[in-house]
Amino acid sequence: MSQDNQLRIRARAVIPGGLWGHMRADGLPRGYPQFFRSGQGCRVTDVDGRSYLDFMCSWGPIILGHHHPEVEAAAHRQRALGDALNGPGEVLVQLAERLTGLVTHADWAMFSKNGTDATTTCVSIARAATGRRKILLARKAYHGALPWCSPYPLGSTAEDRAHLIPFDFNDLASLQQAVEQAGDDLAGILVSAFRHDYGLDQEMPTLAFAQAVRTACDDRNAVLILDDVRAGFRLSLKGSWDVLGVQPDLSAWSKAIANGHALAAVTGRDRYREAASQLYVTGSFWCSAVSMAAALATLDVLEREAVPARLHAMGERFRHGLARQARAVGLGIRQSGPPQMPTVLFDDDPDFAKGERFCIEALARGVYLHPKHNMFLSLAHGEAEIDEALQATQGAFEALAERLN
Amino acid sequence: MSQDNQLRIRARAVIPGGLWGHMRADGLPRGYPQFFRSGQGCRVTDVDGRSYLDFMCSWGPIILGHHHPEVEAAAHRQRALGDALNGPGEVLVQLAERLTGLVTHADWAMFSKNGTDATTTCVSIARAATGRRKILLARKAYHGALPWCSPYPLGSTAEDRAHLIPFDFNDLASLQQAVEQAGDDLAGILVSAFRHDYGLDQEMPTLAFAQAVRTACDDRNAVLILDDVRAGFRLSLKGSWDVLGVQPDLSAWSKAIANGHALAAVTGRDRYREAASQLYVTGSFWCSAVSMAAALATLDVLEREAVPARLHAMGERFRHGLARQARAVGLGIRQSGPPQMPTVLFDDDPDFAKGERFCIEALARGVYLHPKHNMFLSLAHGEAEIDEALQATQGAFEALAERLN
Repeated sequence: MSQDNQLRIRARAVIPGGLWGHMRADGLPRGYPQFFRSGQGCRVTDVDGRSYLDFMCSWGPIILGHHHPEVEAAAHRQRALGDALNGPGEVLVQLAERLTGLVTHADWAMFSKNGTDATTTCVSIARAATGRRKILLARKAYHGALPWCSPYPLGSTAEDRAHLIPFDFNDLASLQQAVEQAGDDLAGILVSAFRHDYGLDQEMPTLAFAQAVRTACDDRNAVLILDDVRAGFRLSLKGSWDVLGVQPDLSAWSKAIANGHALAAVTGRDRYREAASQLYVTGSFWCSAVSMAAALATLDVLEREAVPARLHAMGERFRHGLARQARAVGLGIRQSGPPQMPTVLFDDDPDFAKGERFCIEALARGVYLHPKHNMFLSLAHGEAEIDEALQATQGAFEALAERLN
Repeated sequence: MSQDNQLRIRARAVIPGGLWGHMRADGLPRGYPQFFRSGQGCRVTDVDGRSYLDFMCSWGPIILGHHHPEVEAAAHRQRALGDALNGPGEVLVQLAERLTGLVTHADWAMFSKNGTDATTTCVSIARAATGRRKILLARKAYHGALPWCSPYPLGSTAEDRAHLIPFDFNDLASLQQAVEQAGDDLAGILVSAFRHDYGLDQEMPTLAFAQAVRTACDDRNAVLILDDVRAGFRLSLKGSWDVLGVQPDLSAWSKAIANGHALAAVTGRDRYREAASQLYVTGSFWCSAVSMAAALATLDVLEREAVPARLHAMGERFRHGLARQARAVGLGIRQSGPPQMPTVLFDDDPDFAKGERFCIEALARGVYLHPKHNMFLSLAHGEAEIDEALQATQGAFEALAERLN
């Protein structure tokens, strides 16, 4: 029996369902490993020693590749001093200064551990600042896994979601309707950098939509909260809506901010500084210094190497290659969202059977893809790695086409 | 100007209020540092190079002393392989096996990053398992800093707390009343290992109280949730209520579990495994392997060195010394809670002026104490360190007595 299967059996004995949350392999095709041994650059190795050219990047955190030497050296230097102390280190101040210098809308920053900590803190700041309660958010959008926002309501109460009002991403009429429904109780609008809903074609925000969100908040003195947890630092280092010329009031960050070290952040405009300062949010490890040192080094590399543009170029290379390959075998695929975060769905594939088979074939050829969720590129994905992946996907497309004929 | 003051000024420019949460130095007497440079064993050094014999242990996480070689070696070995990967490592299974072997009530375990993640997950499991909503918790008890449980409700809505019913710790009548108020909607009772409320004398649970909580849950098929985030692993490695012979259904853990590495856990009984497996909770870093490797090594040392008993002995030594010193200068102090987590309050000190002055005097003599919050011992606090601290507190008591005369 494989090491992976042995571990799954042991896990089921001592962990409910064998694992919790988004990394549970039940959501992936059969044959995908559950347990991993190591990572290096853009390659991961499972517990059975099989290595993959990886397009999930740990579901987002790895943006420079595993074991980036500059990040790990910075973390190591800080670790030699201390991590969890009785208060923060100088690195906290340096990181807040760095983020406010980098992110267009950011006048201040706070830190925590989970993306959900950051989105929740943003919602609380919006309510504290406005004295109002209603939060608008897009249907099917993922903003975390606490009772107020988990995509699966089991374990939560109706009251946990009492003041949420849904709208449809990129749909101005539904946004307007939700704003009207909130009336004079509108605290804020929480919106993802782009529509990256699970199992669906991704959508970039239209300029009209982003501006309408901004205008709705301005008109009613409500708070525009950008959830940049997933997209953050891959589309732009200035905030993902900066390219649209639309600035949020608050942004939630996590995942890629420290290249795999556990960290999250909230950035905000001066106008909301006072409310943020009065809010009581905290955690035992929120001042820990090592992840902040790692974040500082990560931001240095991101800026110096112009990583968003680089990921965009490599993502385009991958996207064009996949499109060419699919056409050649007569299979219809849809690639959506930003090239830095590839999403590949097959036409006429309501149960994802084609997508899953394609991924299984790619996995057998050493490339780790996801059939339903957006994927992620890192700085370690160079032209050679993209071309290597395309060699595998060529075989996967051919195998899938043969199977379907 | 001191480095600390310079950093405070820089921090106020880019961080709301200069810092968030429990580590904000506003809650400490003037003269306490906000920013720290390093830690080693039971000593911490602030950014101005002043070193202290530390009795806060980073507010709990440091239980073996900073830079414990065995823990850091295990973390280093895992780090060389990988931390945040596309799934967990074998270390996840080993840690769950270790905890279920160690903690009396534990049939399974799950992991997260914050103590609040763990308490919130417990509440959600209780609601999922029972299909009911009401959670009982003790007045003034701290169970985390999300909108449903933060001690300061700013930023939360009434609905966030709609299904909480308060009772008084160790008060059977108020517990009974709360149970009756919940009626057939009682999902669970959430209770701290002992009463460790801020600024108050601490109280160990009476046997009658613990048994009454257990019986109330048994009678109504409700879930007994022990919040062992703060006390966990300092009182007992089997769970803090094990000594009472009262087992919870679910326990929340964090702080000391990995000697400063960011980790939290939920352990539970088989009866709640199914509900836990159906709940959707997750976070970007919840499967990260380094903190789990650190936790495994931490548990090894905790068990081998019988750390709770050792902390108890050293805490008793400290407590007896302080009592003797206070008596000698004619000052009334009250020491409460478990010796492993010292709390020292002064008689006739409604505004904590005496306690704060005492702590300032101790700080000037190189010992870092807290005037209002429970403190923490670690394995690095040996007889020599306790006696060194007592030399400083002797001077602090004398200075305080002189000032008061």
